[in-house]
Amino acid sequence: MNLQALETPVLVLDRLKMERNIARLRDRLAPSGVTLRPHAKTNKSADVASRIGAPGTPITVSTLKEAGYFLDHGWRDILYAVGIVPSKLPHVEDLVRRGAALTLLLDNVEAAHALAAWCRERALNVPVLIEIDTDGHRSGVKPADPALLDIAAALGKGGKDEGTGAWLAGVLTHAGDSYNCRSAEAIEAVAEQERAGAVQAAERLRAAGYRAPVVSIGSTPTAHFARSLEGVTEVRAGVFVFFDLVMHGIGVCNTDDIALSVLCTVIGHQREKGWLITDAGWMAMSRDRGTAKQPVDQGYGLVCDIDGKPLPELVMVDANQEHGIVSHRTDPSATPMFPVGTLLRVLPNHACATGAQHGAYTVVAGSTAVEAQWPRFGGW
Amino acid sequence: MNLQALETPVLVLDRLKMERNIARLRDRLAPSGVTLRPHAKTNKSADVASRIGAPGTPITVSTLKEAGYFLDHGWRDILYAVGIVPSKLPHVEDLVRRGAALTLLLDNVEAAHALAAWCRERALNVPVLIEIDTDGHRSGVKPADPALLDIAAALGKGGKDEGTGAWLAGVLTHAGDSYNCRSAEAIEAVAEQERAGAVQAAERLRAAGYRAPVVSIGSTPTAHFARSLEGVTEVRAGVFVFFDLVMHGIGVCNTDDIALSVLCTVIGHQREKGWLITDAGWMAMSRDRGTAKQPVDQGYGLVCDIDGKPLPELVMVDANQEHGIVSHRTDPSATPMFPVGTLLRVLPNHACATGAQHGAYTVVAGSTAVEAQWPRFGGW
Repeated sequence: MNLQALETPVLVLDRLKMERNIARLRDRLAPSGVTLRPHAKTNKSADVASRIGAPGTPITVSTLKEAGYFLDHGWRDILYAVGIVPSKLPHVEDLVRRGAALTLLLDNVEAAHALAAWCRERALNVPVLIEIDTDGHRSGVKPADPALLDIAAALGKGGKDEGTGAWLAGVLTHAGDSYNCRSAEAIEAVAEQERAGAVQAAERLRAAGYRAPVVSIGSTPTAHFARSLEGVTEVRAGVFVFFDLVMHGIGVCNTDDIALSVLCTVIGHQREKGWLITDAGWMAMSRDRGTAKQPVDQGYGLVCDIDGKPLPELVMVDANQEHGIVSHRTDPSATPMFPVGTLLRVLPNHACATGAQHGAYTVVAGSTAVEAQWPRFGGW
Repeated sequence: MNLQALETPVLVLDRLKMERNIARLRDRLAPSGVTLRPHAKTNKSADVASRIGAPGTPITVSTLKEAGYFLDHGWRDILYAVGIVPSKLPHVEDLVRRGAALTLLLDNVEAAHALAAWCRERALNVPVLIEIDTDGHRSGVKPADPALLDIAAALGKGGKDEGTGAWLAGVLTHAGDSYNCRSAEAIEAVAEQERAGAVQAAERLRAAGYRAPVVSIGSTPTAHFARSLEGVTEVRAGVFVFFDLVMHGIGVCNTDDIALSVLCTVIGHQREKGWLITDAGWMAMSRDRGTAKQPVDQGYGLVCDIDGKPLPELVMVDANQEHGIVSHRTDPSATPMFPVGTLLRVLPNHACATGAQHGAYTVVAGSTAVEAQWPRFGGW
């Protein structure tokens, strides 16, 4: 079976590129001795995750459904990296009773009190990280915020009380602002801000008597560009495994590193407009337009031939649900009018978003021969 | 069971609003006598589709997987409204052999010749529509394009040759440009252009000896605003069943008509920024920003209370994968700081895109009591 025999659209994963991307981050982190806790939200697949780290190694998830899925596939040390709320505690309890060593995240006193009370009542051991905001991007308390100690006060201090109830295991931050960087220097600066803020918060907690052993940082750009990881104990990253056009746009990878693409078929033309019409619309690519704010806007994706080689200046300029419009980036009259039936591969803006539109990876290894189908899951 | 007992995010469907929306389009089309052939791409659910028309009534689909699903659920008269390519013909054959009365679409001579040859070889009866481009929006040949007759020449003429091979059943157009309208008058003009173009193309075919009985038009805005349907035999529309903020922005519905919402939970705050953080990010809402180009940009969605009542000026201003940021549209200091655990409902920009992110509808009927779970499917 090869790609030419498939009914499109299809999500294609080049295993060789993926393995090269995994090795690159492992090699980079190895000298520092920090733990890699990969974020499974990008791949949602035990087949992919097991190539980053064998079942049983640490993992990060974005939903409790992911936690349950990876628990069922042999992972146990699971960090749920979205702020916990009381309505999700029954699901948490089920996962813990089934054997998950689940670490939770929160950034406010209300959630901390609710979680602590619930763990006390049920004699459940739940390590907890406090989310730290180092770049104003999303959730979290500032490293110097007095609220940090108020939140901690609701939790056990660790040490002899580890293993009983909800206890403070440390801090976590995500430098989401790194996605807006435009240079290596800018990413390095965000990475150092991320590291320093997380370490500062952990030290404030330790000074107040908490053991707080974990300092968890992470984003693919900062994982690749941080000059120091001093004081950091683990790095989370997700998109490093596949890469995408947003990562390319901020200088973290080349287009040749992008392991995911969407295989599609030319279904028609609008010759006077210089358009190829394909059967991969936004349902297959997602509506993500992450490169729209970057210096080079890649539309809905960069178009490659069947072998995955980018075609000069050809991008997916617009999308309907099941229709893509492909054209030359600046000169539509230069669009090659490939015949109906031609197969193309489109590199995605955002691997997490495009992957989520598909139920499986069709795996190749540097050629058009299909070597496997790996299922992926979605939902909550 | 009520909405308060659910783990979020959850796709909520208000059945009463949906039924009102269905009745509105049925009532509008009834005097004209044209057939409603609803587009199932929006709902991807036999439970929803059967409330528009009982199994066995005409339906439109956007993928062959949808065709197979609806065939399995009792629908037979199915229009696949995306241009056919040779690589999909084995799937088409399987559907026809299983009993589907499948109508196909194309807009070029290559596809017409390939389809005709394939039907001849296999003695398969396949009615075919030629896609007409009335607004420069996507695929199709212009109503006056000489290519129209070249495409037709590859197909049977209908009449005594109906039932054998690929034969020309008529024309189809989709006034996608209606989504860019800003007034009822503008939609009426696009609707008339759609109708007139489709009828003109059909008349050219008839003058050349083709029976071409079908004139299929459709989009939710034009279905609701067309002043004349003369010469039209069927209307396709999809989003009319749920409506959304894009439809509201072009004046086709009120926010109170929008039957879909995403239930989410407040998981934290950034008080100095006037942000509520929720657990519905772009994975739950989709990345669709269809209102960004409209006079009122609704961000990733308009925020309502648990009962579905819009909260003054509160919108989802930004999204990460599993985090939403909710704030007052213009004055973040006016954002109400609802406690952690508060449930909110977010109306979507685009019902097709938001629905596609979920595996089921949680059905309510004007209250927070859950009356059913209706599965929906995705993929290809």
